Amino acid sequence: MALKGIAPSILAADFARLGEEVGTVLAAGARVIHVDVMDGHFVPPITMGDLVVKAIADQVHEANAKIDVHLMIERPEEQIRAFAKAGADSITVHAEATPHLHYALQAIKEAGCLSGVAINPGTPAEAISAVQADMVLCMTVNPGWGGQAFLDSSIAKLQRIRELIGDTPAVQVDGGIGKETAARCAAAGATVFVAGTAVFGTQNPAAAVKAISTATNG
Amino acid sequence: MALKGIAPSILAADFARLGEEVGTVLAAGARVIHVDVMDGHFVPPITMGDLVVKAIADQVHEANAKIDVHLMIERPEEQIRAFAKAGADSITVHAEATPHLHYALQAIKEAGCLSGVAINPGTPAEAISAVQADMVLCMTVNPGWGGQAFLDSSIAKLQRIRELIGDTPAVQVDGGIGKETAARCAAAGATVFVAGTAVFGTQNPAAAVKAISTATNG
Repeated sequence: MALKGIAPSILAADFARLGEEVGTVLAAGARVIHVDVMDGHFVPPITMGDLVVKAIADQVHEANAKIDVHLMIERPEEQIRAFAKAGADSITVHAEATPHLHYALQAIKEAGCLSGVAINPGTPAEAISAVQADMVLCMTVNPGWGGQAFLDSSIAKLQRIRELIGDTPAVQVDGGIGKETAARCAAAGATVFVAGTAVFGTQNPAAAVKAISTATNG
Repeated sequence: MALKGIAPSILAADFARLGEEVGTVLAAGARVIHVDVMDGHFVPPITMGDLVVKAIADQVHEANAKIDVHLMIERPEEQIRAFAKAGADSITVHAEATPHLHYALQAIKEAGCLSGVAINPGTPAEAISAVQADMVLCMTVNPGWGGQAFLDSSIAKLQRIRELIGDTPAVQVDGGIGKETAARCAAAGATVFVAGTAVFGTQNPAAAVKAISTATNG
């Protein structure tokens, strides 16, 4: 089943008490937990690996929710098995990260996961037109650098993505997403809304989950 | 001040409740918390980045303990500032990971941290002989692959490292370390003992910390 609705990114959570943070957003209704994997090569920071997926997998699955892994790494095809084994339900790879995009998406499906293809702000929507995936992730900021604002050019790109892929696949947005930008993206065709700071960076993550869900009719 | 004694590696801890796990080993007397950073390039897995250091820094420092970062990554010189800023007290880079070993060690010192140089099992002790560091890390298994046993050839290498660097710098061992191997390494000149599974993989991590400390006269 396709991913849908708000996807809190644990990148912005308190890693000393990750289980508790995940529990809070699950209780608030989130059914997708987004895991941002960075390797210090495709993007400058190093963030987290499959051991983090493994640590939260049972908790997320017991809540009937999904673990959505976003690989911002070079050679993503080499990491697919490890993340699938750790408990990922969906795995997204960047079109810019590998010359073997079709192969990587096939490997994700063969590992039993939903497949996603991501594109950066500088990559045209057409970059995804030769592959088939369960989800397209349209980056709405440049991944790996903090403190960026939502790029307005994303709205036209989302509309173009929908023209290319039709109504069925999920379309995810990630970067600068709060309730206002999420609503604008939903109107342009997005169906999955990654929110990090807008959830875990607030005093009340549960209220933030509910506000973004409401704004996107989730 | 040089690092000393047991250094529990959080790689083997439960990442859903990392603060609690760190609290347990600090209460048992550990004064060094070892952070294994892997990027999926220098070694196959991706593990954790500076956000994890940041999450535990206050807790570790309030216990008058140190955060010891082991960079198993390519181009380590590019990550030193991020880890120093997050709260690392010592940073170790691999001799095999960069053509700029001297530069990397200088950058660590300039960032205000203790500097460490690590060598893999296939690298001779002499690889560290042209640099000066506060610590030498002698890998006692090959990093990045699980389930390996302590390499007996490490004992002679530790003795050779002590001949090369004298008595002052710390010498760390990492891989397959439990109380018996730790005692053998201590007798060969090691002063810092990284233990992951032997601590967090047991029913009683606190008892494991104490047993390894006792075995090494810590």
